Amino acid sequence: MSHTNKHKDKLLARVRRLKGQIEAVERSLESDASCGEVLNLVASIRGAVTGLTGELIEDHIREHVSNPQTDPDQARAQGATELIDAIRTYLK
Amino acid sequence: MSHTNKHKDKLLARVRRLKGQIEAVERSLESDASCGEVLNLVASIRGAVTGLTGELIEDHIREHVSNPQTDPDQARAQGATELIDAIRTYLK
Amino acid sequence: MSHTNKHKDKLLARVRRLKGQIEAVERSLESDASCGEVLNLVASIRGAVTGLTGELIEDHIREHVSNPQTDPDQARAQGATELIDAIRTYLK
Amino acid sequence: MSHTNKHKDKLLARVRRLKGQIEAVERSLESDASCGEVLNLVASIRGAVTGLTGELIEDHIREHVSNPQTDPDQARAQGATELIDAIRTYLK
Repeated sequence: MSHTNKHKDKLLARVRRLKGQIEAVERSLESDASCGEVLNLVASIRGAVTGLTGELIEDHIREHVSNPQTDPDQARAQGATELIDAIRTYLK
Repeated sequence: MSHTNKHKDKLLARVRRLKGQIEAVERSLESDASCGEVLNLVASIRGAVTGLTGELIEDHIREHVSNPQTDPDQARAQGATELIDAIRTYLK
Repeated sequence: MSHTNKHKDKLLARVRRLKGQIEAVERSLESDASCGEVLNLVASIRGAVTGLTGELIEDHIREHVSNPQTDPDQARAQGATELIDAIRTYLK
Repeated sequence: MSHTNKHKDKLLARVRRLKGQIEAVERSLESDASCGEVLNLVASIRGAVTGLTGELIEDHIREHVSNPQTDPDQARAQGATELIDAIRTYLK
């Protein structure tokens, strides 16, 4: 079982939204949109990819390493909470 | 005329390749691929988006600000060359 | 004359503040601060370095390529404004 | 005990090297170095901060969540190995 099963629908929705954003860039190039417009669309993709990465890593921690809500080892649960906070800070 | 016209075909090919990479992530989630596999696919998208951003900004400099190959003002041409080098370093 | 002369004092103040942030990380490691504390201090450095990079590139554009406020060529001034906006978006 | 104790000396050496890099930027500004030179120095700092962040997060995983070399739970050790690989990919 992969770490992506649990939140599979949520992740798939996120990936499909990202595909929609790429298609918007494609259309903007085809219709000769202004440079600034294309750059703004690409900037939004950049943020979306970083956010998706952070969510995938956080899911992986919870499902394959330690889920702070259910881990009976309190020290490890605390370490996992701090780790998830750090991932959120660096990949937001 | 937008800065994207000149290299429009090259940029469109790049954007379509990026869409193909997103679709690979979509399929990997649908087929319950392992976590590591999904994360590797997303890492390659991240690099591709950064590279696309750098190319769009470099095109914009050459077409709307200063093209070092054709700018008759040598000081500005030199400044544009250094600027493009910096963009390549930071968005590669 | 370097692009850094004009805003030299402002940039130097920014670099010295950054050095102070590194020294705070150094002290936190020496005094065995908690992991989360060290990570938070390093996260703030990351943001400061990105902001400094953006400021250096923006200064370079204004002083060596095109300053939108003074460039007599309106098309190039417009291109430089869009470029500076893009740099601010990607390096903030 | 913090996650930084074990590798404290190694981390401190890294932070002090980073401080030396900032001081090189400070000197380059004071001596009116060229724009390109200052930008190159700042680019190297950016890479060093990202590498330090990755090392701090990896140490935290090994010391406070799961150390793949010593964790008796094989599934968790495997999950931690994949997590460390992902962190290395995204924060290198």
